[in-house]
Amino acid sequence: MTKVTLIGAGNVASHLFTALSSKDDIEIVQCYNRKGIALATGSYATHCVITDLNQLLPSDVFIVAVSDDAIAEVTAQIPAGDHFVVHTSGSVSIDSIDNKHRKGVFYPLQSFSKHKEITFSDVPFCLEAEHQKDYDLLSAMAKTLSKKVYKISSEQRSTLHVAAVFANNFSNFMFTIANELCTANDIPFEILHPLITETAEKVLTLSPEKSQTGPAIRKDSETIRRHLEQISNLQYKEIYKIITEAIQDTYGKEL
Amino acid sequence: MTKVTLIGAGNVASHLFTALSSKDDIEIVQCYNRKGIALATGSYATHCVITDLNQLLPSDVFIVAVSDDAIAEVTAQIPAGDHFVVHTSGSVSIDSIDNKHRKGVFYPLQSFSKHKEITFSDVPFCLEAEHQKDYDLLSAMAKTLSKKVYKISSEQRSTLHVAAVFANNFSNFMFTIANELCTANDIPFEILHPLITETAEKVLTLSPEKSQTGPAIRKDSETIRRHLEQISNLQYKEIYKIITEAIQDTYGKEL
Repeated sequence: MTKVTLIGAGNVASHLFTALSSKDDIEIVQCYNRKGIALATGSYATHCVITDLNQLLPSDVFIVAVSDDAIAEVTAQIPAGDHFVVHTSGSVSIDSIDNKHRKGVFYPLQSFSKHKEITFSDVPFCLEAEHQKDYDLLSAMAKTLSKKVYKISSEQRSTLHVAAVFANNFSNFMFTIANELCTANDIPFEILHPLITETAEKVLTLSPEKSQTGPAIRKDSETIRRHLEQISNLQYKEIYKIITEAIQDTYGKEL
Repeated sequence: MTKVTLIGAGNVASHLFTALSSKDDIEIVQCYNRKGIALATGSYATHCVITDLNQLLPSDVFIVAVSDDAIAEVTAQIPAGDHFVVHTSGSVSIDSIDNKHRKGVFYPLQSFSKHKEITFSDVPFCLEAEHQKDYDLLSAMAKTLSKKVYKISSEQRSTLHVAAVFANNFSNFMFTIANELCTANDIPFEILHPLITETAEKVLTLSPEKSQTGPAIRKDSETIRRHLEQISNLQYKEIYKIITEAIQDTYGKEL
């Protein structure tokens, strides 16, 4: 039985509580957050909350799921005692955890929304620990949740986080621009839904390089010119230009 | 029984041949392309090909699935005879079809690849015609293939095509940049697959506005600064900057 303590009250802490508390070989000892917020409905979620870090009971791992900025401070506040303390951030180094603890990272690479359930079995867990036995504990715990468990260094994780910004945040913003263009012209955005699904599905089997289509890679300058004429938002026009140039430069090299 | 003639030998023509030839109430009369290429395997696909537009038999609709640039020329070469001639392009006006014909547009909004099968039932068909009875024919034909049939004017279609470039080509290029960043740091790109799937799925239920997450919308300038440091490709750095600014400006307005 692995004893787990959850620190924090955001989306990641809540989703981890729900997922971990259903596992037979995991016991959630306590949940800490300043305001005493229960991480889920149900009596145990309410019962196990503490608001004072001095009340922490012994645990095999303390999972600190707080905002990036708060990791150093919160881990410093956890009393000393040969604790294994991990954070869940994609962009913060393992070194930001206070030096009095054995350090680790337990980063689920997914976009967590409050009201959308997460199927953890498909979420990649990126793990790091200073000591092999701590890594083994994280790995065993991650494997109860997910099929996808990776050993990723702080340096790799930091690149992965940039890559995730492009793959998730920026591609979503491309959908936002598409939506705005449609709405402004009385076109239902749902017309683009199948294309968006297909774009994402294709990249899972073909590489994104092989999936690239459109006027930029075809160097169809007449279509590009007409498209630019149609975009009135100057920022979106600039985005169209610079991505078109980058596509042409990237694939120009290979031709 | 609707009689259909297919003109062109590219991906759209091939996929339409395969889909339409399996329908009971559609008869493919002939397929024309200069080189006499069969649009599919099987004896009928070979048998029905002609290489001379003067051999065209009567048909209810002539579907011209050729490159955008060739639409005007190819439709001009089709002999006069009160023909209903449609093109399949997202970005070309209905007016580019030669004036001697009754004009229409039969635009399947999807990214067609040679070696990837298309499930037409989910492909949105954007239709336009000068005359109601011609529109009705296109609509009936599209409905045999797909649940999603839309009446879209040339002006709307032209905006839709720009929107599709953002939603498909540009989001795919965001995946390309993510892939390059991963590969350069020995990170398997497959770690990002579930995030990409989730990004596309979310946009089908929530709007892209509501799905936006990440350091840009959080105005997390420290993370943004670190990310920019990590991107060595100058074009990708510029793309990161300009999309981050656009996200902040777009959501800044609303806050």
